[in-house]
This record gives sequence, C-alpha cells and structure tokens, in this order.
Amino acid sequence: MSINSQDIISNSGIIINQDKKLYSFNLDTILLYNFAKPVKKGKVVDLCAGNGAIGLSLAAKTKAQIYLVEIQKELADLAQQSIVDNHLTEQIHLINDDLKNVQQYLNHDTIDTIVCNPPYFKLDEQTSIKENQVLAIARHELKTNLTDILSTIKMLLKENSHAFIVYRPERLSELLSVMTSQRLQPKRMRFVRSTATKDANLVLLDVTKTVKTASLKVEPDLVIYDQNHQLTKEASKIINGK
Amino acid sequence: MSINSQDIISNSGIIINQDKKLYSFNLDTILLYNFAKPVKKGKVVDLCAGNGAIGLSLAAKTKAQIYLVEIQKELADLAQQSIVDNHLTEQIHLINDDLKNVQQYLNHDTIDTIVCNPPYFKLDEQTSIKENQVLAIARHELKTNLTDILSTIKMLLKENSHAFIVYRPERLSELLSVMTSQRLQPKRMRFVRSTATKDANLVLLDVTKTVKTASLKVEPDLVIYDQNHQLTKEASKIINGK
Repeated sequence: MSINSQDIISNSGIIINQDKKLYSFNLDTILLYNFAKPVKKGKVVDLCAGNGAIGLSLAAKTKAQIYLVEIQKELADLAQQSIVDNHLTEQIHLINDDLKNVQQYLNHDTIDTIVCNPPYFKLDEQTSIKENQVLAIARHELKTNLTDILSTIKMLLKENSHAFIVYRPERLSELLSVMTSQRLQPKRMRFVRSTATKDANLVLLDVTKTVKTASLKVEPDLVIYDQNHQLTKEASKIINGK
Repeated sequence: MSINSQDIISNSGIIINQDKKLYSFNLDTILLYNFAKPVKKGKVVDLCAGNGAIGLSLAAKTKAQIYLVEIQKELADLAQQSIVDNHLTEQIHLINDDLKNVQQYLNHDTIDTIVCNPPYFKLDEQTSIKENQVLAIARHELKTNLTDILSTIKMLLKENSHAFIVYRPERLSELLSVMTSQRLQPKRMRFVRSTATKDANLVLLDVTKTVKTASLKVEPDLVIYDQNHQLTKEASKIINGK
C-alpha cells in the first residue's frame, strides 16, 4: 500500500488516506457527502466506496454503523488505514469484495441509508482506457454496471429508506429508467453546474425504495462559480466549510 | 362553438381562438412553442393539440405541413376556426380523433417533428375532478396516458427525428422510463423555475427516436422572475417578444 496524501473533507474532520496515483476524492465526493442525510442510528452502507472518503466522512454526521463496500484491494487497504487512523474501527467496517457478494456480509432489507458514487462511464463510450487499472475500474463499468448497483441498493435498503447517489446528467435517462425497474423512486434531484449559464456537470439524487408513487422535486441548482469566477456562497460553504 | 377570446402567442402573429371556459393556452404553451425547433419543410404534428395554440403558432417558424391531433370536438372546432381565420387551410390540417386512431390519417415513420403538451395528471392524484369535462380531459389522463402518447410519438416519427414535450418534473422519472421503453431518447432537457431558488415547475424535453445511445444535456434553467420580482430578460423575450 502506498499513501502519498492525507486529506480532510471540509466540516467532517476525518482524515482520508489517498494515493493520488490510484484514485483520489474530488468534488463529486464532497457534494455527495453534503447532500446525503444519513440516519442518526442504524446501518449505513457506502457502495463503490473507493478509498472510503464519503463513508468515513459520514462518521461526522451519524452514530450509525457504517459499511464500506469496495472491490479493489489497493483502495480498500487505504480505506482500512483511514479507519484505523481516525480511531473508527468500532463504527466503520470494510467489506473488500464484489458488491454481487454483499449478501454474505449484510442481510437484505436491513440498511437504513446508502451512499453511492458509481463508475460513470460505459465501456463503449471510450475506445481506449489509457489510465491505470485501479482508476479505470473506479471510473468505468469494468467490474459492475448500473443494473447491478441499483439492484444491490434495492436489495439492501429497508422499505421507505433512502439512497443518495451522484451521477452524470448524460446518463440520467438510463439511470431513472433502471431505478424505476428496481422499484427505486427519486424524491429529490439537484443539478450541479460550474456556472448558472452552463449545462449541468453532475446530478445528485435522493432515492427511496417504495411501492408508492413518488413525486419528484427538482431542487434549485447548486452553482459552483458566480459571474466573477468566485465560488458562490453555497459552494464555498460546502467546499471550504465557510 | 363559443369563442370568447382571441389571443396571439408572442412573436408568432398567429391568432388563437379560445373559449376560456373550456381551456386556454398558458405559459406551458408559450414555452414549448419557443423551445421547439421544427423542420423547415416536411411534416409536423401537434399531439394533444387542444385549441391548436402551439401547432398554429409553429406556422410562424416553418413551411412544413402541420397536423393538429385533438380528441375533443369543442377544442378541435376552435382550432379549425383559427386555421380559417389565419388563412392557413393549405398548411394546417385538423384531425379530430383519438390519437390511437392516428394511423388512419398519417403513416408511421413519416413525421419530421412532433410537439406535445400532454395531460399532466394521473387520475389517482386527484380524488375529485371538479372542473368542467373539457378541461378535465385536457389536464388529466382520462382519455389517454403517457404510454399511449409516447408510443404514438415513436410510431409517427422518422428515425433520428425530434419530438418536443413539456411536462411536470414531479413525473419526470416515469416519463423518462416510458420513453426509454419506447426507444425515445432525450437529447436536451431544460427546467423552468419561477425563481432561481425555487423547485422547478416545468421541464422541456427535446427527444429523438434512435437506436443509438444518446447523451443528455441538461441545459441552463429558464428562470421566469428575478430577485426583484421582474421578468428576467429571457422570460420577457419569450413572453412579451422583447
């Protein structure tokens, strides 16, 4: 294991061990951490956890037991080191396995909150994957895909519980379509733009597992930069904590 | 037939005969007219045309043959009168029938552009429908539903041609899910908000019939009022033509 950076997600105070050659957290992670509303007690799962940045940071928001599910050993090792460094071994637990095997560790219909920052890219969208293997698996659907991820979320979640997901608008139609087929209904959606006059770069979703018809709220955009190229008040609070 | 109002959608110069007791065009209509990019020549269909406000106005944007499809005789009669009043009988044609029968008038895979402002509300969302019958059918899924409408759009459209739809964000997930099942892919999506800090009221969609994987652009919001409760520059241009 190689650690070449220790970072903290604003507000959380949690140290995240990173190897920037492998994969390091970015704006997506920080936004999802801020968007997520974990239960105060119970069980929380971070699916496709990577180096655990979101799941670890959530320890600042909840007393729930937190499970990090990550397939790649190199990233899981970094996450485990962060669990130890933050003295969180009693609250946070690492599952270094494929999410297809998650039922070996967690029972279905038992999880209160799920957070997930899935790989964004289909394999056929990029003709060649020039990055390193670890980064490629974190970013591309090499080891999993939307259907596997959403069916795992549906399987783990308690009825009427929530999952928080960050994704790319480019694939929103596919995402909502697969969600609907898995009885997952988006309740809140928020688009993230670099400026108010640009196309959205990211979408944040608050999704619930329910048989009822859900009504979707498309909340005000999160705009990162104002007209003067400065962080907006809200973005500054999320990113810098002030 | 009772006409108690004649209105013009800004920029178009086309007179729309209305009976405000039945149904009159509103902001949705004006926004969809502005959002739609009809082909210059060929065939255009306005599905769920109502009094024909969108389809008629499109005569200001295109030389294409325009077909209005409206099930309700009261509204179709108003549309026909507007076609005559605007001297557009050679360009605009009324089909006063259920969209399920549209193949009796138009061949599949022959339409270049479709515009559609469908009924927004499911029957089970309102316990009682207190409005008059004509308005109730225009607003609620009494005579048609999303699946019927989207399968008609798919059937009529030429491959790689576009449909322009206005809808409510509350049912966006269902809309995109049914679209996907009909091989209709959204290419552009734009949310409309009364102010930048409010949840979206409407969503405009530019959809294409294609077998390819489409990448969705979520364009900058259309915001109607600024912080001083004045129409924004863009909204003023759309609504007042200046």
